[in-house]
Amino acid sequence: MLQDQLQNKINSKTKPLGALGLLEDIALQVGLIQQTTQPFIARPTIMVFAADHGIAATGLVNPYPQSVTAQMVFNFLNGGAAINVFTQMHQLQLIVVDAGVNANLSQLNQPNFIHAKQGMGTANYLTDHAMTAEEVLNCMNKGKELAKAVAQSGSNCIGLGEMGIGNTSSAALIMHAITGTPIQACVGRGTGANDEQLTQKINTLEKVATFHQLDSLCNEPLTLLSAVGGFEIAMMVGAYLAAAAEKMVIVVDGFIATAALLIAVQIEPMVKHNCIFAHSSNEQGHANMLQYLKAKPLLNIGLRLGEGTGAALAIPLIESAVAFLNQMASFEQAGVSTASE
Amino acid sequence: MLQDQLQNKINSKTKPLGALGLLEDIALQVGLIQQTTQPFIARPTIMVFAADHGIAATGLVNPYPQSVTAQMVFNFLNGGAAINVFTQMHQLQLIVVDAGVNANLSQLNQPNFIHAKQGMGTANYLTDHAMTAEEVLNCMNKGKELAKAVAQSGSNCIGLGEMGIGNTSSAALIMHAITGTPIQACVGRGTGANDEQLTQKINTLEKVATFHQLDSLCNEPLTLLSAVGGFEIAMMVGAYLAAAAEKMVIVVDGFIATAALLIAVQIEPMVKHNCIFAHSSNEQGHANMLQYLKAKPLLNIGLRLGEGTGAALAIPLIESAVAFLNQMASFEQAGVSTASE
Repeated sequence: MLQDQLQNKINSKTKPLGALGLLEDIALQVGLIQQTTQPFIARPTIMVFAADHGIAATGLVNPYPQSVTAQMVFNFLNGGAAINVFTQMHQLQLIVVDAGVNANLSQLNQPNFIHAKQGMGTANYLTDHAMTAEEVLNCMNKGKELAKAVAQSGSNCIGLGEMGIGNTSSAALIMHAITGTPIQACVGRGTGANDEQLTQKINTLEKVATFHQLDSLCNEPLTLLSAVGGFEIAMMVGAYLAAAAEKMVIVVDGFIATAALLIAVQIEPMVKHNCIFAHSSNEQGHANMLQYLKAKPLLNIGLRLGEGTGAALAIPLIESAVAFLNQMASFEQAGVSTASE
Repeated sequence: MLQDQLQNKINSKTKPLGALGLLEDIALQVGLIQQTTQPFIARPTIMVFAADHGIAATGLVNPYPQSVTAQMVFNFLNGGAAINVFTQMHQLQLIVVDAGVNANLSQLNQPNFIHAKQGMGTANYLTDHAMTAEEVLNCMNKGKELAKAVAQSGSNCIGLGEMGIGNTSSAALIMHAITGTPIQACVGRGTGANDEQLTQKINTLEKVATFHQLDSLCNEPLTLLSAVGGFEIAMMVGAYLAAAAEKMVIVVDGFIATAALLIAVQIEPMVKHNCIFAHSSNEQGHANMLQYLKAKPLLNIGLRLGEGTGAALAIPLIESAVAFLNQMASFEQAGVSTASE
């Protein structure tokens, strides 16, 4: 059995049994994903999906104006955002996707920028479905296509990030519907809501939950996406599904990325086998989401930025896990005595 | 004030306030250590101090035979240990020091191996002082000299690691003496003691604590080192002191490295300002040590290997923190709108 072979290889290394902690679990997991005792990480990639949310135009859930989504896309393309710094530092490929930003970005022409605009932001889910059923399927298919293209370019490790003013609200609503957690425990400060804004956000999302009868959608992932999702979230769902089908290592970022994963896992539970959880974010609700998924995050350093930043910061640890499995000497090779029993 | 300038610079970056969590604290700290708003990490170095412990020859506290210390030094020099893999992966300089291994290593001639042997292991502290007062001073001076040489070679960031069969026992005794924690709560499984071995280790160390009246040595760091320390631990104490004096960023590894830091901080409390805590290890007692030092570790992934491995794995996060401070665009530079209040 491959699992036993991998575990024996890990245990043969010149270190006490289990002494590399979570890195040992990851080495095993990557070996199982790739079905080999000599796994490797090739061209790790962060793909950031950007889109706008109709709810954000109301200002009821977000301290930053909706226009920041487009401004941040420019920032990504100019190399000035946190995800640019971290991907450059750790030699990761960065791809930015216009999934539905409320601005005309058609003039932007860069090899790492993908035009996949599904619309100028979703509809306002206070009074409407965020997306039509067709839009959901289009987004998911686009996400699948994009992740598959990354795999075909020679990458076997992908982290999904996002940018979209208002998208912590979609994520909170998805978490509420799927996990049954009360809205109040799902909603956090997002990009920095103060107390008053937070109360308003909770009240608004409770109305949304009632309006869309989210309690009844806990096993209806596509309907749920249509009701309160986002273009970027639906594309991420598709990307997770395709990345798993392509046997990629999937690095799961924060609150919104994990909400998209909740949906992907409902559609195809096997996706979880490919997931490594980068971090537990400071956004209220993320820790509970991770618990729901029985995930052991690598980092817990109070990040709450999105953009795939947590995934980018965790990839060096994943590379380290794979490297120890391949490169460390065994007790036998090094002539080191083993423990007495 | 530099602190305000640094905080303003951090807050001006295109991200919500505080959204990079602990990395923001680290960017600030490194700026303060280097007294600049443009800090940098140059030639990060892991220095591994290896030495043997008289107690280990009794077999009362350690499942691995004492000879493993020397065997692991050979493994380090042949590139087969975990610390080799991680330093290579993250482009860190690795220096190995024979602080007092119980084997003749004089024939080993490699540029990254330093001969600083203080003896063929310490005396058995069950019946004797581990070191003489003179040995303690010699070791500390050697550690200072070595850290200073690293700084002078152009490195401004150092992580201290160790290898020494039996040295979790020294660390537990030091923790007990300085923090007042009962022996039982200081002692862990080290390199993998089973239940019976753990009980024997606790009983043995309780005898040692009584024999040396460790309760009375809580403010006597040099006497404490002499009673139950180790050559590698005393050198690490000196290295911490010199690294802080050289304004280096100090990356603190696990249980033994933190025990040495407890002593260094007693001698010079300012050392702590230079310390970044790499991880909370799986060795029982380490989390309490960190709490005693009011430290916020970067990683909590169940490591318990020593060798400076936790420090090596944390350095990419520290480099990321410094990089965001220097390279991210500000709201003004990127033309991104700030949050409404």
